[in-house]
Formats: sequence, structure tokens, C-alpha cells
Amino acid sequence: MDHLSLEWLGYVAATLTTGSFALQAWHTFRTRDVSGISLGMYSAFTVGVALWLAYGVVLRSWPIGIANAVTLALALSILAMKVTIETRRRRPRPPRG
Amino acid sequence: MDHLSLEWLGYVAATLTTGSFALQAWHTFRTRDVSGISLGMYSAFTVGVALWLAYGVVLRSWPIGIANAVTLALALSILAMKVTIETRRRRPRPPRG
Repeated sequence: MDHLSLEWLGYVAATLTTGSFALQAWHTFRTRDVSGISLGMYSAFTVGVALWLAYGVVLRSWPIGIANAVTLALALSILAMKVTIETRRRRPRPPRG
Repeated sequence: MDHLSLEWLGYVAATLTTGSFALQAWHTFRTRDVSGISLGMYSAFTVGVALWLAYGVVLRSWPIGIANAVTLALALSILAMKVTIETRRRRPRPPRG
């Protein structure tokens, strides 16, 4: 496989893996359904993606940097929805009337 | 940052992002709660990771290859649980007694 095709393979792979988190973020925003989402996963994943972003910056690799910056923003939004929605559900509601 | 530290940064990042899917797979296996998981995300993500695996094989890069092979197996298991659990829930149950 020549260099250009390999580069395209990388861009398509990055677009799919990064873009997929936009689908999860939209699904969570629309349904507010977070019980099936693992808090552990999104915590570890967010730290891991932040490290990949640092890796791309140090390596001065724009593709790695941009893909992971976008993924980090999306993963953080899913993590934030998970934490805020579940915190609200646990808060005791004031008695009505 | 010297080369060795950069390599370690990559291994730690790969371990966190790959390992995080094991946490989601275990959470889904334990709770059977798949409604909050986006089918679109895991479909796109699985294809993307498969392409990253091909990218690593062509590049003969063991870290990229191994990390994405493990992530692919985990993402496929989450996707399979999502599809099978929801298919069973939609199937009409035979009347009891």
C-alpha cells in the first residue's frame, strides 16, 4: 500500500472513531439515559485521550492532535452529562404541595 | 521530551483508552442496561477501530496493532450485547399459562 493510501486509511479511521463519539453525545443529550454508560469507562477514556492529545502536540502531529482534541471535547461532554444527570436524580426532591 | 518518555506517554494513553472499553463491556454485561448506549456510535467506532488495526498492520506497528485489536474485540462485544439484548426485548413473549 503506497503512502497516500495509508494516510487516507488513517484519516477515514480517525473520522469514524472520533465522529462516533458525537453520535453517543447526541444520543445521551436526546434521551438523558445515562444508567447504561460506565462512569469508569468515560473517566479512564477521557484521561487517555488527553494523553494522546499531549502525545500529538509533542510529536507535532496535526492529525493525532486534532482527532484527539475533538474526541476529548466529546468524551468530556458525555462524562459531564453522566455526572450531572445522575447527581440530579440522587438529590432528594422537595415534597410537593 | 526525549523519545523514551514519549513512547511511555503513548503506552499509558493506549492502555487507558483501550482498557476503558473493558470497563464499559463489564458494566453492560453486569447491568444488561443498553438503552443508553448508541448503536450508531458502536457501529461507526467498530469500523473505525478495524481500519486503525489495518493501518497498524500495514505500518507494521505492534503498539497500534495490538491496542486496536484489543479495542476491536471489546467494542464488538459491547455492540453484540446491545443488539442481542434489544432484539430479545422486542420479541413478543408467548402468553403464560
